[in-house]
Amino acid sequence: MTAEHDADAELLARVFLSRVVEPGDEVGGRWVRELGAVEVARRLRVGGPPPHGVSDKRWAGLRARAARAEPERDLALARSADVRFVCPGDTEWPAQLDDLGDARPTGLWVRGRPSLRTWALTSVAVVGARACTEYGAHMATTLAAGLAERGWVVVSGGAYGVDGAAHRGALGAGGATVAVLACGVDRPYPPGHTELIGRIAGQGLVIGELPPGDHPTPSRFIVRNRVIAALTRATVVIEAAHRSGSLVTARAAQRLGRHTMGVPGPATSALSAGVHELLRGEATLVTDAAEVVELVGDMGELAPPRRGPVLPRDLLEPDTADVLSALPAHRAATPAELARAARTTEDDVIARLYELRSLGYVERHGDGWKLTREAMTPARFGPPRC
Amino acid sequence: MTAEHDADAELLARVFLSRVVEPGDEVGGRWVRELGAVEVARRLRVGGPPPHGVSDKRWAGLRARAARAEPERDLALARSADVRFVCPGDTEWPAQLDDLGDARPTGLWVRGRPSLRTWALTSVAVVGARACTEYGAHMATTLAAGLAERGWVVVSGGAYGVDGAAHRGALGAGGATVAVLACGVDRPYPPGHTELIGRIAGQGLVIGELPPGDHPTPSRFIVRNRVIAALTRATVVIEAAHRSGSLVTARAAQRLGRHTMGVPGPATSALSAGVHELLRGEATLVTDAAEVVELVGDMGELAPPRRGPVLPRDLLEPDTADVLSALPAHRAATPAELARAARTTEDDVIARLYELRSLGYVERHGDGWKLTREAMTPARFGPPRC
Repeated sequence: MTAEHDADAELLARVFLSRVVEPGDEVGGRWVRELGAVEVARRLRVGGPPPHGVSDKRWAGLRARAARAEPERDLALARSADVRFVCPGDTEWPAQLDDLGDARPTGLWVRGRPSLRTWALTSVAVVGARACTEYGAHMATTLAAGLAERGWVVVSGGAYGVDGAAHRGALGAGGATVAVLACGVDRPYPPGHTELIGRIAGQGLVIGELPPGDHPTPSRFIVRNRVIAALTRATVVIEAAHRSGSLVTARAAQRLGRHTMGVPGPATSALSAGVHELLRGEATLVTDAAEVVELVGDMGELAPPRRGPVLPRDLLEPDTADVLSALPAHRAATPAELARAARTTEDDVIARLYELRSLGYVERHGDGWKLTREAMTPARFGPPRC
Repeated sequence: MTAEHDADAELLARVFLSRVVEPGDEVGGRWVRELGAVEVARRLRVGGPPPHGVSDKRWAGLRARAARAEPERDLALARSADVRFVCPGDTEWPAQLDDLGDARPTGLWVRGRPSLRTWALTSVAVVGARACTEYGAHMATTLAAGLAERGWVVVSGGAYGVDGAAHRGALGAGGATVAVLACGVDRPYPPGHTELIGRIAGQGLVIGELPPGDHPTPSRFIVRNRVIAALTRATVVIEAAHRSGSLVTARAAQRLGRHTMGVPGPATSALSAGVHELLRGEATLVTDAAEVVELVGDMGELAPPRRGPVLPRDLLEPDTADVLSALPAHRAATPAELARAARTTEDDVIARLYELRSLGYVERHGDGWKLTREAMTPARFGPPRC
């Protein structure tokens, strides 16, 4: 067998497992760690006695799902919808998800152009109540816009209320945003957010653990939250009642050693009670994007060029290199301006600018983008075109 | 000279100093510590070269004030207005003020019946913006009422806004409250709070460092805040803009090792910005009285009977003993009921109940008061009358 064949087999096995094993199933995760995805998939298909610690009933359920699984078809379906499947170990795999141990996703279905790995490096989760107040929606929008303006990627769950406001705030600021769904990424949920999730996929990323067509369930929403927590450098909660799912995300983030933050509200608001509970614990109170950034760190500290080698200019994708070439040498340019110069769409330009930012070539400057000092240094990146 | 003569001389010297030296003057505090109040008063009267480190101009100012001071007259004036002067070392002196070091008050002018020392032992400061919102006033009122219902003494500055709402909340719950003024205690400030401060003096205590008739100044308000911070076990801030005087109180409380707490508000409210600033530091977020009490400790832990000897029943003031005798053996009684039984006013009963609580004889029970288990133990307090 060739290495390519191995990789294909691994990919197909993980696509199969994403259909058969529920997200967050730690027993399944342990089998995969111990036996490898290919062997676990084979045993689920072929049958035999249930593995140690698994009831007959559970084993029968898994076997029944295995019998119905069609990984080649799932993969073909996904590809036709411009959805890719990213596995642990792939260059696009966000390594911080490995912190989840045996609860690590089998793989992630990804819609959208940017690299999930590079975006996740500088991302912050903004989550909160679905039935938020006007105040909560306002705070989510302005906080997400402020994070986007500072070059941070806003991750949320695509839900009504705070999640939607956060995504819209980032999109509205011409920024980067990632929706982590609890269903197939080709099947936007909630239905009322079909247009919003489409815009996120166009300008950012829509990701999830569930295969095409799969639907959300209450437990899938809760289990999805660990991915939001693990993917990001910090989780900010804006409005959450006691026992809200957002508190699950925040507590997962705390267990993973990520920063957790909360935006306070009136002590009389039941929708702030959960946030205040967090703030009475380890979470830090924040009132704006600057305070979030102060905690997660200066973007300068994160940008790869200051700490090691970056992708050389001539290894960039041609379309990305075109956007880089379109940037003027000594001033900032807006995405609209760059889209005209690079003969592409504004959404495409934004996605590529964020990629270039992760590589240290560009930085935000007010409403526009400009080349970094490092990008101007021929020794490092080669001279920019004027 | 007799001991009584010494005490009189000390009292008169400190009354004199309270007129001549500004509150919080640490140079003055050091002189008193090094030379004693009587000697410092003598030097200020007699004159001579300025002490080390004091400019000629400052010395001349102090001498001019000394020449005008009439301590006997101040004391007589105060006594005629039912105001007493409490000095360090007096049985009523709250020892925790000694934590202020050389900034300790020379003495405190006190209006009201209860013992300042015993009340201060179980007190919490509730302070905040003068120009508070409806939300701030609501939180101050309910938090203070909740503290009063749990037997805590609410200390504040008698100002408009949060302070006034806190005092009213405690009074409305039939509870104990202390106003610490930045002017003479016979001269209520602000004028619009004359009636409120009168009610506080009737049901609780009105105290201050400044002698009768003296007026407040901006710096006196700020310096007064250290007394609020030092007197109490904790400071709770409800609404404060950046650079608010309430933050001065909270920071003083932190320096003195007291608990500091803040009630959050909307991140969009400038009047909560100062509180949020505190909460981003060492202060603890609280949303109700129960959370405050959780932090400052269970009243049971503080009540003297559980940790040592208490004032025996036959050493109580006769009027206080009458209130104790009026308490039924096996149920709670309201202050109104006790006032009828003890043939006195409800305000008087409340003041004496708080004194009895400090001594471990009684505890709050809903709207009423009842004997503690310890008070029912003959070995300790002698049997209650039935």
